[in-house]
Amino acid sequence: MDAWRIEHDLLGHKQVPSDAYYGVQTVRAMENFVVSNIPISQFPFFIQALGYIKKATALANLEYKILDPIIADAIVTACDEIIGGKLHDQFPVDAIQGGAGTSTNMNANEVIANRALELLGKKRGEYKIVHPNNHVNLSQSTNDVYPTSIRLAASWMLNALLSELERFKQALEEKGREFHDVLKMGRTQLQDAIPMTLGQEFIAWAESVGEDIERMRIAQTLLYEINMGATAIGTGLNAPKGYAEVVTRHLALLTGLPLVPSRNLIMATQDSGGFIELSGVLKRIAAKVSKICNDLRLLSSGPRAGINEINLPPMQPGSSIMPGKVNPVIPEVVNQVAFDVIGNDLAITLAAEAGQLELNVMEPLIAFKLFTSINNLTNVLNILTTRCITGITANKERCREMVENSIGLVTALVPVLGYELCSEIAKKAQKTNGSVYRIVLEDGYLSEADLTRILSPESMLNG
Amino acid sequence: MDAWRIEHDLLGHKQVPSDAYYGVQTVRAMENFVVSNIPISQFPFFIQALGYIKKATALANLEYKILDPIIADAIVTACDEIIGGKLHDQFPVDAIQGGAGTSTNMNANEVIANRALELLGKKRGEYKIVHPNNHVNLSQSTNDVYPTSIRLAASWMLNALLSELERFKQALEEKGREFHDVLKMGRTQLQDAIPMTLGQEFIAWAESVGEDIERMRIAQTLLYEINMGATAIGTGLNAPKGYAEVVTRHLALLTGLPLVPSRNLIMATQDSGGFIELSGVLKRIAAKVSKICNDLRLLSSGPRAGINEINLPPMQPGSSIMPGKVNPVIPEVVNQVAFDVIGNDLAITLAAEAGQLELNVMEPLIAFKLFTSINNLTNVLNILTTRCITGITANKERCREMVENSIGLVTALVPVLGYELCSEIAKKAQKTNGSVYRIVLEDGYLSEADLTRILSPESMLNG
Amino acid sequence: MDAWRIEHDLLGHKQVPSDAYYGVQTVRAMENFVVSNIPISQFPFFIQALGYIKKATALANLEYKILDPIIADAIVTACDEIIGGKLHDQFPVDAIQGGAGTSTNMNANEVIANRALELLGKKRGEYKIVHPNNHVNLSQSTNDVYPTSIRLAASWMLNALLSELERFKQALEEKGREFHDVLKMGRTQLQDAIPMTLGQEFIAWAESVGEDIERMRIAQTLLYEINMGATAIGTGLNAPKGYAEVVTRHLALLTGLPLVPSRNLIMATQDSGGFIELSGVLKRIAAKVSKICNDLRLLSSGPRAGINEINLPPMQPGSSIMPGKVNPVIPEVVNQVAFDVIGNDLAITLAAEAGQLELNVMEPLIAFKLFTSINNLTNVLNILTTRCITGITANKERCREMVENSIGLVTALVPVLGYELCSEIAKKAQKTNGSVYRIVLEDGYLSEADLTRILSPESMLNG
Amino acid sequence: MDAWRIEHDLLGHKQVPSDAYYGVQTVRAMENFVVSNIPISQFPFFIQALGYIKKATALANLEYKILDPIIADAIVTACDEIIGGKLHDQFPVDAIQGGAGTSTNMNANEVIANRALELLGKKRGEYKIVHPNNHVNLSQSTNDVYPTSIRLAASWMLNALLSELERFKQALEEKGREFHDVLKMGRTQLQDAIPMTLGQEFIAWAESVGEDIERMRIAQTLLYEINMGATAIGTGLNAPKGYAEVVTRHLALLTGLPLVPSRNLIMATQDSGGFIELSGVLKRIAAKVSKICNDLRLLSSGPRAGINEINLPPMQPGSSIMPGKVNPVIPEVVNQVAFDVIGNDLAITLAAEAGQLELNVMEPLIAFKLFTSINNLTNVLNILTTRCITGITANKERCREMVENSIGLVTALVPVLGYELCSEIAKKAQKTNGSVYRIVLEDGYLSEADLTRILSPESMLNG
Repeated sequence: MDAWRIEHDLLGHKQVPSDAYYGVQTVRAMENFVVSNIPISQFPFFIQALGYIKKATALANLEYKILDPIIADAIVTACDEIIGGKLHDQFPVDAIQGGAGTSTNMNANEVIANRALELLGKKRGEYKIVHPNNHVNLSQSTNDVYPTSIRLAASWMLNALLSELERFKQALEEKGREFHDVLKMGRTQLQDAIPMTLGQEFIAWAESVGEDIERMRIAQTLLYEINMGATAIGTGLNAPKGYAEVVTRHLALLTGLPLVPSRNLIMATQDSGGFIELSGVLKRIAAKVSKICNDLRLLSSGPRAGINEINLPPMQPGSSIMPGKVNPVIPEVVNQVAFDVIGNDLAITLAAEAGQLELNVMEPLIAFKLFTSINNLTNVLNILTTRCITGITANKERCREMVENSIGLVTALVPVLGYELCSEIAKKAQKTNGSVYRIVLEDGYLSEADLTRILSPESMLNG
Repeated sequence: MDAWRIEHDLLGHKQVPSDAYYGVQTVRAMENFVVSNIPISQFPFFIQALGYIKKATALANLEYKILDPIIADAIVTACDEIIGGKLHDQFPVDAIQGGAGTSTNMNANEVIANRALELLGKKRGEYKIVHPNNHVNLSQSTNDVYPTSIRLAASWMLNALLSELERFKQALEEKGREFHDVLKMGRTQLQDAIPMTLGQEFIAWAESVGEDIERMRIAQTLLYEINMGATAIGTGLNAPKGYAEVVTRHLALLTGLPLVPSRNLIMATQDSGGFIELSGVLKRIAAKVSKICNDLRLLSSGPRAGINEINLPPMQPGSSIMPGKVNPVIPEVVNQVAFDVIGNDLAITLAAEAGQLELNVMEPLIAFKLFTSINNLTNVLNILTTRCITGITANKERCREMVENSIGLVTALVPVLGYELCSEIAKKAQKTNGSVYRIVLEDGYLSEADLTRILSPESMLNG
Repeated sequence: MDAWRIEHDLLGHKQVPSDAYYGVQTVRAMENFVVSNIPISQFPFFIQALGYIKKATALANLEYKILDPIIADAIVTACDEIIGGKLHDQFPVDAIQGGAGTSTNMNANEVIANRALELLGKKRGEYKIVHPNNHVNLSQSTNDVYPTSIRLAASWMLNALLSELERFKQALEEKGREFHDVLKMGRTQLQDAIPMTLGQEFIAWAESVGEDIERMRIAQTLLYEINMGATAIGTGLNAPKGYAEVVTRHLALLTGLPLVPSRNLIMATQDSGGFIELSGVLKRIAAKVSKICNDLRLLSSGPRAGINEINLPPMQPGSSIMPGKVNPVIPEVVNQVAFDVIGNDLAITLAAEAGQLELNVMEPLIAFKLFTSINNLTNVLNILTTRCITGITANKERCREMVENSIGLVTALVPVLGYELCSEIAKKAQKTNGSVYRIVLEDGYLSEADLTRILSPESMLNG
Repeated sequence: MDAWRIEHDLLGHKQVPSDAYYGVQTVRAMENFVVSNIPISQFPFFIQALGYIKKATALANLEYKILDPIIADAIVTACDEIIGGKLHDQFPVDAIQGGAGTSTNMNANEVIANRALELLGKKRGEYKIVHPNNHVNLSQSTNDVYPTSIRLAASWMLNALLSELERFKQALEEKGREFHDVLKMGRTQLQDAIPMTLGQEFIAWAESVGEDIERMRIAQTLLYEINMGATAIGTGLNAPKGYAEVVTRHLALLTGLPLVPSRNLIMATQDSGGFIELSGVLKRIAAKVSKICNDLRLLSSGPRAGINEINLPPMQPGSSIMPGKVNPVIPEVVNQVAFDVIGNDLAITLAAEAGQLELNVMEPLIAFKLFTSINNLTNVLNILTTRCITGITANKERCREMVENSIGLVTALVPVLGYELCSEIAKKAQKTNGSVYRIVLEDGYLSEADLTRILSPESMLNG
């Protein structure tokens, strides 16, 4: 077998490796887009989404009787292989690419056409029999296939993220229960406020993650409105009447997703609103998880010259020069991924804003950044739960000491003594380095019994 | 009357202008925060929200019988005045402030206390009778009052934004109907694609705005979960049992908003998730409206050396040196506000991420940026609808000419002639500067009748 | 006198308030741009810059003998008034505007023309005698006047910022000297590291600000390359030969700034590179000052349940509910302005990227955001120095205690005992809650004399 | 040989693959940081920088006589291999990692120690002889090694970027010369302005790139100030006196870079100012190159229904459905990388702001994003020059037609006829779809001779 076969397209002839399933247009794209060196095959759900879409369109074309059943059958089989995880190495196009995804779509069309040819006992490149454009891409355009494949892939990736969020939430809840009796100072603006329990702290974080999960589930549904049937600009040119409904029905059946056709295909073909908003929710999650990690790092600061309320499980020696130092490396890496997600959200916003007229040509970057944000968040949440949260222990004694020693206890006296007198007591405690308890007692503001009752930290925990 | 009265607080005595309703803590804040020179009074809905909240808490305190009815009555009357738009000039604190909103809350507490004193025939500053902290702020903390006031204010401001979005959508739809028969080239990647109507273009934009409206309505509901009753850190210290439900009921009744208490007040007191997500939806709208304005500027480019499909109404002479030049100044200012909103979203995200432990101390910036984004977007959408969209006219002849002259028509021949032959025809048209119609006819690929039927642009409009 | 006079322009006739110096185009702009409600007069340096530019062009036009000396004289006098701070209330145009600054330039042209008319004993609106375009704007275009006025104004505003940065640096240095003997733990990753002095901490911050000052001075010079003489698109149409050099010479003389004409006026007219880079340096400063404020808040956390190494001067009561609480309100407001500056940098970047072909139409937003960032940073640095840094005190005993109690001291033993044995010692100290000193001694690794010498924290301070 | 060897560290024993040069701490890091799946080996300059630094420190330690010459020699040889491109596959740690770079530094220490052991005829893991911490890391800390390695690597990567910027500039200049006589309309705000040449357009872009190059060269010098000798927090603990100067001298000699020690090592160890500013300049370049690409896409829009002044070389078929369509895929991919760089700049800014006290723990993200921005920009500039700029052709006839047909020509008449009359002429031309030339002539404002002279577009090109 020769090392190369010759294919041609609008721009002329070109060598293609003989054993490649992809064809001339993929080769051109590989030459044109030497950018990130991250091929689209890095995102298996994305390749599988293309497989599902091409299968659904083949079935729809069959239903419309505009595709020869034998060819349809070969296409469907090739798609099934891709869905099953095969041939992914045949998708070498760079994730950052010009052309609004045409190279990705043509990569899929070519791989499927050549594999279908092979299944029919033909040679790769015999496009007269199965043609990437005329058959595999029949009734489609990059402009409907590509955004739809992003939506499917993102939706699947979000399932993994959602399940990591769930695990994270549960781990926080468990710690919340474990620490339900660890009394500690609450802090606002980094200054001592009033008592609470460490359990309340963890439960509040858990609840906060719970809200993120809810919001993410809602944002995920933005992905289910697709524009298949739009073809080039949403007018549906070259697709049969009613194609949007038919192909969406097939795709929904194949994937089990509640897909619906967009109510306005022209709008849907140029619109990136759903992607921005989804990325905005990812950013929300990133900012909030980052805040929790900042809190974990604060509360575990020390061990001797910091707050030291909790201990994170040690994961690796912390320093090449300072022996025995252990650092909160897991929260630290989560913070960094959060910053990455926020940066990606900006890139997505810029890309979305830059759409012009009937299409958003910057969709490849949107896809790349969206996928990266989801994957990286998923990865670090897994680490955070497994390698940090579940191993956290509390320094109960130290926590309690700080409460008893605190000036913030004075707040509980306001209903009895009024804000201004309490201010004076606090001032005196601060100045004399004394305790609120002793000052109130010595200055005779309250009886010992009353004082003890009111100042019991436990009584402060729930109103 | 003396020019000054003397008040004191934790830090000592201080002069306050005699005729001021605000007091010592407001004066300190005015000295501390010389930052943006934009006082919070710039946002009347914000001041009114404070009025509603202080009224609701007075009523709740009355219900709990922890506030003297006479004092409660005076406080309620003072609040009603603020709600009615009075005393707003007594809120001079800078919109960008440290202290997590304490200065804003104390500003309200002081103004209400002093106005209540006046109503009771007392002198300003006689806080023994009506005290800013002990009475006006009873059962509250800045940490529940302040975020709640942001939520109320933002929710009211969004009503104005939503109604401008509606008007914008309707104006686009009207133009869509007006231009339903203006045939024009669709463009993808700035290159000629296939025909559509100008009406379809406007309707697609309208639909896109329609989706934004839907999303914004959903985001608005994020504002209705409030944390009144949380007091300092969410444990409800110094508020009576069940206060969250009671005060929220009062506030919901007074405002007519579907407010509910947060299910976890500790979480709610430290969480900024709702604000980030809302800002994310504002960013979505900004990016999409900016895209529409970019399109308007493109389509009206010219008049002689551009695309020139539409005319925007001239709003002002365009140049100090080039006579007769008219520029698309309205879309241009919308673009700039969109960039502003995107920048504000970033500031909000940073502020949200910077929250620590039991409170987000950066809430004043969140409020300021959120309010500014909503107001500026509302303002420019009003301008865009009134001073641009409704006056747009179409250059029907020019639009049609470009279609008839286009190579993109060849796409309609693909189902008959196949992708590759059509590529050849397109190539020849491009090279010879000829028309697709003539080439197909001359080269004998189709009969004139077939050709005319298939190439009728109208037949291309809907699949 | 009538309340109105009638003026006309390309779009027709229009009422102008009789007593206004501005004219018809300013009125149109006021109607068109109801956006931020912040008029350009909010930035006095900006208005003065326009005065200087219009004066310099009048002098240049006089030198070229293309402007009647009597008219030139009147224009120069009007400009001098503006430079002197008069007539600024005649600049009501919104800071966020479409039209690439034409409204601002025409506002200046109209005010100067009408004031010149008045000086010549004529009536406002008698533009046959002194015309906003033909005389005041002679040899100019908005496209050279407007960016040049931004450059002058920003350059002057930066002087104030630079002097606040200097004061901030000096205050840090002073504290550095004051705290030169306060031994404390250094911390990396919020974990105890090794000893240093509080003085070193403050000096390091001062040095860091010193580097910012250097970088800002360099960035400021980017503003001195101007494009006067470019007129509409940089080709200099309607300006006499050599005009760029002549007018720049006049402007440099008048302002005392080292202005030079751009080497390529077409490039300079469309380019926003200098503005982005300047904003990037503002962002650098914002991020770094924010980091210092974060550190101040950390080190002053407590007073009882935090790190509590330093005390920030109390500036206002910290809580409406917690008596005696004092919060780090000044660093907090600085953080928020830093976030604002970072958000503004993004808006500026978006605006800069959106320039098209021969002009950047988004310059008004660039100006607005640049001015706001500089002013707000200047304001908060003033506050930070005056109301925070200079009043900071150290808790020397506590600082020293934490050092002596620390495990990090073990690092100093590595050269003698090796990394691994030191790791074991650290581990034992942590586990037994013991001191490194005692363990080494008890386990006989070193003599007391050696140990005391090596473990002297002072010996650790400088290598 | 066994498949595994056992190593241990602070946290206990752990299996390491027998044939790995890395050791236990690298294995822990591989387990802890499953994040981006991009290993640091993806950035060869980064690994080489580590090689240079470890070599320089070995030489400095030798000079100080604190390292056995035989061990030093083995370390140097191991480093030379890494510098020579070997062993890079032994650097598997994820680019996004917690721990402030400790894992990267320890990865290098372990690889070098084990390779040195091998060179000395010892077994891997025999750290008693050559120890990763005690020998390879002698007189160092991650906190000086890691940021220094980022600086070296970034500085080398910038050389590639600078040379691509140069090639891009030269290609633009060449086209500028080629198109020096192609008369075309200049456009501001997408509206026809006045004539210029296509050559001027390209030369302006070239000049603009020239300024970027200058700025980048200046920013590159920010990388040459390093903090070697700082060790843990900048106090130089465990490094001999004067070490900073000595090791910097060695490193400068080895690399040929003009490295200098920072004047304040404590400051330098916590500071990220240089990285933010450098990233800000990358952002500047990104925004400006993106603007040029937007212009290219605008000017080549069409071919029939757009501006169509220039033709970009076709690089691949543009559509899966529209035959013959060719899209500006190269500028499109550049735009996307520009958005990516802007997003990365944000992530870098967030990471820089998040530094705390004596160290910036987020440096790994800073490194990753900086390297990615530089590499991706370098890659797309190469593509842009080679696959787009050099192949651009002009549609001279069409360009000239648009000029002659334009209303903008009227500007040249202002000095003779005044702004207002010219406005009237422009208005009439617009209304009647007529030519300025004919209207002026017919209405008798000027003689044909004068008119022809003034309206000659060529006379408009240079003032």
